[in-house]
Order: sequence, then C-alpha cells, then structure tokens
Amino acid sequence: MTDLSLIEAAAERLKGHARETPLLSSPFLDKLAGRRVLIKPECLQHTGSFKFRGAWSAISALDAETRARGVIAFSSGNHAQGVAHAAALHGVPATIIMPSDAPRMKIDNTRALGGEVVLYDRERESREEIGAELAETRGLTLIKPYDEPQVIAGQGTTGLEIARQARDAGVSEADVLICCGGGGLTSGIALALEGHAPGLRARTCEPEGFDDMRRSLASGQRERNPREGGNICDAILTPEPGEITFPIIKRLCGPGLAVSEDEALHAMALAFARLKLVLEPGGAVALAAALLRRGEIAGEAVIVVASGGNVDATQFRHALERYAE
Amino acid sequence: MTDLSLIEAAAERLKGHARETPLLSSPFLDKLAGRRVLIKPECLQHTGSFKFRGAWSAISALDAETRARGVIAFSSGNHAQGVAHAAALHGVPATIIMPSDAPRMKIDNTRALGGEVVLYDRERESREEIGAELAETRGLTLIKPYDEPQVIAGQGTTGLEIARQARDAGVSEADVLICCGGGGLTSGIALALEGHAPGLRARTCEPEGFDDMRRSLASGQRERNPREGGNICDAILTPEPGEITFPIIKRLCGPGLAVSEDEALHAMALAFARLKLVLEPGGAVALAAALLRRGEIAGEAVIVVASGGNVDATQFRHALERYAE
Repeated sequence: MTDLSLIEAAAERLKGHARETPLLSSPFLDKLAGRRVLIKPECLQHTGSFKFRGAWSAISALDAETRARGVIAFSSGNHAQGVAHAAALHGVPATIIMPSDAPRMKIDNTRALGGEVVLYDRERESREEIGAELAETRGLTLIKPYDEPQVIAGQGTTGLEIARQARDAGVSEADVLICCGGGGLTSGIALALEGHAPGLRARTCEPEGFDDMRRSLASGQRERNPREGGNICDAILTPEPGEITFPIIKRLCGPGLAVSEDEALHAMALAFARLKLVLEPGGAVALAAALLRRGEIAGEAVIVVASGGNVDATQFRHALERYAE
Repeated sequence: MTDLSLIEAAAERLKGHARETPLLSSPFLDKLAGRRVLIKPECLQHTGSFKFRGAWSAISALDAETRARGVIAFSSGNHAQGVAHAAALHGVPATIIMPSDAPRMKIDNTRALGGEVVLYDRERESREEIGAELAETRGLTLIKPYDEPQVIAGQGTTGLEIARQARDAGVSEADVLICCGGGGLTSGIALALEGHAPGLRARTCEPEGFDDMRRSLASGQRERNPREGGNICDAILTPEPGEITFPIIKRLCGPGLAVSEDEALHAMALAFARLKLVLEPGGAVALAAALLRRGEIAGEAVIVVASGGNVDATQFRHALERYAE
C-alpha cells in the first residue's frame, strides 16, 4: 500500500543518491504573487527533473535477481532519463519506450545516459501495450511512470523535504502547487505533507485543455483528456489520472488549477530572470499559477514545485523573446 | 586581520540569511571535462550572486549606530544588488555608485531592491573618489567590493560550504576554480579551504585581456589591466588585484587561468543544458576553464564556483544561439 512509511523507506534508499534540492525565493516574485513564494527547484535534480527520485526508488526496491535482468519504461522524456540514469548507476540495462514526437533533446539524453530507446507513434500506438510486450519477451521489469507505489514513494520524498524546509522557513500553512501529469509527484507529496506538515495542502497544476485532474477532482471520478498531444507542456500530458494516484489526490488535495501555454512561457522567463533557473514548460505550470493566477490561491505564502528543466534551447529562447523584460 | 576565525564568525551571522547553495554535477559535464566536475551554483544565492554573502557580513558587522546612518557601495552590478538587498533587510538606506554602462538589468534590480543608484562614467571618473566623497558628506559607511576584511570573510563562507560538501561527496583533493575580479571571493575561499580542506587548492579564472590576477601571480606583484571595460564578463572586470586580497591569493592559490569571451558563452550554454542554471558571462569563466581548458588542470576531480547569474535575456539568447547543441 502506498503510504507514508513507503515514502520514508524510499527516502532512506535515496540518501546520498538523489539530491536534496533547496527552497528558493525572490523578493521580485513575492511582489508579483502578492504573497511569499517558496520554490522547490526539482529541475536541479539528477537528470533535470524529479523523475530520478521515483526511478531510483523503484529500481532500488527490486530484489537483486529481478533487477539484474533489467528494467523498461515508457515516457515522453523525463521519466525516461530518470530510469535510464538510475538503472545505469545500478549497473543494469534499461529499455525506454518514447513517443516519436518527444523533444529530440530528451531522446538524445536518454540514449546518452545509457538507455536503449524504442520510439512509438503517440496518436496510433499504445505505449502500455508495447511496454507490456517487451517486458514479457525480454524478462524486464516495467517501471511505470506514476501508477506504481514505489515510484509514488520516491516522488513523495520531495514532500518530506518540503515539509522540513517550509518549517525552517517559518511557513506552516500554505498551498503547495505541483505540476501534474498522471499524479505520481502530487500523490507522493500529498501523503508526505499529510504526515509531516498537515497545514500544507497539495494542489495540482496542469495545462489548459489537458486538465483531466482538475476536472476529475471537480466531478469526483477519473475524467479523460480529449487529446493526448499538441501542447508545449509535453512532460505532463497524460490521458487521465492514475488509478492509484487519483484516490490519494481526491482525498488530500485542494481544487486543481490550469494555466495556458503562454502563462507557462511567461513563468519560464520569470524563473530565468528572478531565480536563475531553467524550467521547461511542463515544469513551469505551477510557478505560472502562483505568479499569474494569484486570485485562485489563498494564504500568505505559497510553495511551488518547479518539477523539470529539460527544454530545448529553441523553445527557451522563444520564452525569453516573448516574455523577458 | 582577515583569517579563518573572521570567516567562521561571518558564517554565524549569515546563518538563516544567506542561502547554502548545493553542489551540483552532471555525467555529461564529467565526460566533457575528462574528470568529475562539482559545481557550486552561487547564481542561486540571494540577488543572483555570491556578493550577498559579503554584503550581509559587512553590514551585520557594523555597530547599530553606524549601520543606521546607511551604507554606500560602488559596483558594476552584483555587489550593488547584494549591498542594496542586505541593507534593505537590515532596514538601513543604501547608496550605490554604478558605471553608466553596467547592464540595465543590474541597475534596475539595484533600484528595485531599494538602493539609491548614482551613475558614473567608467572611463573618465573614479568610482573610489565618488564613493569616498559621498560617504563623507552623508555619513555613510563604504562597503568596498573586495578589499575589506568583513566582505572577504562573507565570501569565504562559500569556501566553508565547499569544504564540507566536497568531503560529503568523497572529494579530498582537487582544484577549486573561482571566477575572479578583485579577489574577494577567491581569497575568502582560499582561507576557508586552508583551514578546512587542505587538499583543495583555489585557482583564479579571469577573462583574457583582463587577467591581472594571473599575471600578478606569475610576476609576484600586483599587475594592472590595460583597459577597464569592453568585455562581456562585466562582473569581474577590475583594474588590478586588491591590496588585501592579493597577498592571500599569492600565498594560497595555484596558477591563474583565463578564458575567452566565446568560451564563457559556451559554458553558459552548457550550464543551461546540463545544470539547468542561468549563468552570466563573468559567472561562467570558471566553468569554462573546467570544461574547455582541461589540459590546464590536474587531478581526478575539479570544483567550480559558478559565481553569478545576472544576465540580460538578449545576451543569454545569444549564448544559446551560438553554442546550444
């Protein structure tokens, strides 16, 4: 069962391997947001996103014999890099199934980190089916991107750090805005906060048009997105909330938020200027909500998880051209 | 006297005010450098550079009455922002003398942080004279950018963190490459390492054509640069090594390094892609030396201080256009 003890056990396994990211801030962003803003920059995590945490957690939890046969993952890029790198550090092979329209940089990095990349067509093929078949024929263990207890536990270690760091910063009540795809990071953080910082409330942030979690939270049941691609926030485009993650998020999280592509780009430019951080669009939606949707948030402080920074230079330059002051 | 005890006392005063920056790494950069590379990202420090440390140290060391009258500083931008912000947090006024050709963003930020900015002509006027006169007429305390023991002590706290973090990372012998202007950061770090990590050796990194410290280390006496401006590494263009800083650097540091403007831009693009960090040219010269001058460094590991990230969007886009893969 996915609970606090699983997250605390994952934190033990991650010690000395995952990076404890700091909690950043800027008086300029506080002013813009109309409240204190604390940013957890998981773009500084190994492989440029929080995904390394879940990957390390899941791979390190396997028994030695199973692990030695290798792992397989399907991912648009960040989970791919996390699994490839965590597998390489464990000395085991990783096969990664990626959509053919994933950012080239993410595909290249996954290969460079030692992963064997298998491409598929996002509109016509099911990555789940391809993954299941390869896993069976090669004897590989499938590391799912979010609907997997040990992955959720690994992502949840971010929440343990937030609970401690927010307390050190004197913040005991705040919304914690989290970039959300399938809900692995959000559900893990929500469980960690429930146990260690009950005054902090997790809230999902998504791209408009891909706000399945927000609509699911509103209706009380898992809702699907009409499309599976076609948004710059590639890292967090998932068809629907996870089976395991949604009940946790429904029980613990506040109402979901959604922002436009332009707001994500604007937040990237602000993170560049004020935090000296490189964020990708999907890793910037929570910051965008904190800074540009202040009316949808309550309280004197807000905590933001900046979940990833794997962005092509062309797209980053575009964000700066559009929104840098 | 500027020594280890002054740095340790500054560290006590900075606790809870300056940010302890992490030590980052990337397998891609290790491969490029041909050795393990550990990066200390002071661009993530308050105000976007290490300068906040020295400013806080100096202002917090003043007696209450002196501090209340206010402080004054002369700076091309990073020391300006550090002093303005540290003064504002202490609730005292700050007057900042800046060259009229300083990056607009640094001037704007200094004003937004509460500093009163006085501009001067870098080629025709002496900032030291202007500073001394204003200090006297207004009763302000001058916070020098580097030739001031409490400023050196504040910058040296970076070295205390490096000593501990390198030990945690299993690195006991390495060159520590430091972006160097007047030598405040380098001398402070060198003293901290002498006391806490004697196997780590500080080395200065400068822009070619403004390598006064490298030439001074070679000749054994303080050498001047032929020019005072005209290089993209504006943060670290100083006329000559400091009177206080140079004897410390001469006693403790290895040979100086220098890189071209293009190498600094290249390092900025690599920090973008591999570390998700925004560096300014002057804050990237040490990383440039580590990655692009590997033959001038010895040992299995190298530590790099990425000292600042206050760069205009136009210049950052230029770096990505030229060097992003």
